[in-house]
Amino acid sequence: MSISTETDESARKEQAVTDKVLASFDSTASPRLREVVQSLVRHLHAFARDVRLTQAEWEAGIEFLTRTGHITNHRRQEFILLSDVLGLSMLTVAINAPATAGATESTVYGPFFVDAAPEIPFGGDIAGGASGTPCLVQGTVRSTDGTPVRGARIDVWEADDDGFYDVQYDGDRIAGRGWLRSDDEGRYRFWSVVPASYPIPADGPVGDLLTAAGRSPMRPAHLHFKVAAAGYRTLITHIFVAGDEHLDHDAVFGVKDSLVVDVVREDPGNAPDGTTRNEPWAQIRFDIVLTTGHEE
Amino acid sequence: MSISTETDESARKEQAVTDKVLASFDSTASPRLREVVQSLVRHLHAFARDVRLTQAEWEAGIEFLTRTGHITNHRRQEFILLSDVLGLSMLTVAINAPATAGATESTVYGPFFVDAAPEIPFGGDIAGGASGTPCLVQGTVRSTDGTPVRGARIDVWEADDDGFYDVQYDGDRIAGRGWLRSDDEGRYRFWSVVPASYPIPADGPVGDLLTAAGRSPMRPAHLHFKVAAAGYRTLITHIFVAGDEHLDHDAVFGVKDSLVVDVVREDPGNAPDGTTRNEPWAQIRFDIVLTTGHEE
Repeated sequence: MSISTETDESARKEQAVTDKVLASFDSTASPRLREVVQSLVRHLHAFARDVRLTQAEWEAGIEFLTRTGHITNHRRQEFILLSDVLGLSMLTVAINAPATAGATESTVYGPFFVDAAPEIPFGGDIAGGASGTPCLVQGTVRSTDGTPVRGARIDVWEADDDGFYDVQYDGDRIAGRGWLRSDDEGRYRFWSVVPASYPIPADGPVGDLLTAAGRSPMRPAHLHFKVAAAGYRTLITHIFVAGDEHLDHDAVFGVKDSLVVDVVREDPGNAPDGTTRNEPWAQIRFDIVLTTGHEE
Repeated sequence: MSISTETDESARKEQAVTDKVLASFDSTASPRLREVVQSLVRHLHAFARDVRLTQAEWEAGIEFLTRTGHITNHRRQEFILLSDVLGLSMLTVAINAPATAGATESTVYGPFFVDAAPEIPFGGDIAGGASGTPCLVQGTVRSTDGTPVRGARIDVWEADDDGFYDVQYDGDRIAGRGWLRSDDEGRYRFWSVVPASYPIPADGPVGDLLTAAGRSPMRPAHLHFKVAAAGYRTLITHIFVAGDEHLDHDAVFGVKDSLVVDVVREDPGNAPDGTTRNEPWAQIRFDIVLTTGHEE
């Protein structure tokens, strides 16, 4: 048997496996599930064939996924981290981005949102004891045509000055998260702490992958927003801090130029919300533009 | 902005995400790891773009993998099952198949091999209490040039008559598995039970996928072999039972015609190994051909 005949024969046998697997999904009741799963099979098989995946590599993949599953719990979502560092999360954001010009851009959700965040009043403080320089964040929520959006629910969450979210600490303390509503003019305002850069959890399989790739686990400093209002598409985004040294190598590829904002550092004294600060503080202005669509 | 311009702009932004992720792996120290991971990123991203993956579908995928991880333990390997039902396991077998004509074909390893199986003497019984009709399995281990392979380690394992492997029962009983060595003429012989068809574990996420796809969870009756000898490529295969009703829709795509053998049913009486059977029994002949290579 010549080499090329052997190669043809191998290719034929490999294609036969793929064809049989694709056919096994032909009776899937949901047309959309059938489309997604058959496409997944095609691409997964093409990957294995392209790299000539060895048995040992297949085993390493099974082991990697098993470790990823076992380290995931109600406080830590290693599969989201994996999707994040492989850029699948940001690609999904890009695929689903609204085409409407002028709307605030989206970025990754991340694994640290929790449903049980407290409501805070207009101008209230979400820090809840999180360490860091107090930071006044304010702006407006408007539609792409400029109309103020009243009563929008604005969820915000962030890491403390040490780079940890509340859920990464032992116990059930809630800190660095909360939600409020925009007022009748679409304005919002709250106190938090100046966001800090931090490494994503690097002591699991995703951290091992980054180490093997010579990649930094750092994320540039940011504050998460989720903004929902009836008749508008729910916005999931962050704001990033201008000048952060990690802006150009975010471990999860979340940075967009339009989301980088100035953090203005202030001396002790009067803040624009009428409070008096006895320590250095900072302020951020971030105006949000929603596009019409389905609230999620 | 015209529709086609919007589409171009979206495609450009999506490609920019993929390019950035690929570049982030450029410094991977191992050239092979770089190749594998960059190919994985390319195919994973192409999948998401091809199906226009929605955020809800992305979330469903994260949830599916999380459930798969959490149901996996030292008795159950749901990621291997997932790889099996998506045909990745059999494709990997095909990719790594030796080109040597005449060698016994490989099939999937499956999730039920364990290292701690007991050694049994030539002609011994691996059943260990597993239910089923006693079955004498014998044959030879030879090289592709016909030379008998002496001292080959032959690991065998199988489900009992109810379709369960020992590790699927509570407790630490070992049954339906063991290993022995081929003799100086390359012969082997052991007693087991006639293999039974069974469903793969269907109460987890993989079972849900099969249900959604209208696929059967059944595997045709089979007996697993792992055959290792110095100087030879380790063979991982099964034998299947001729006439099994599930041969044409094995849930894990493992069937190959060359691996289907006859199970000859016998009345009580004298067996060819010199023992006397007081109950109906059966016998299988299976000759194994190894190809030279690296013992794993």
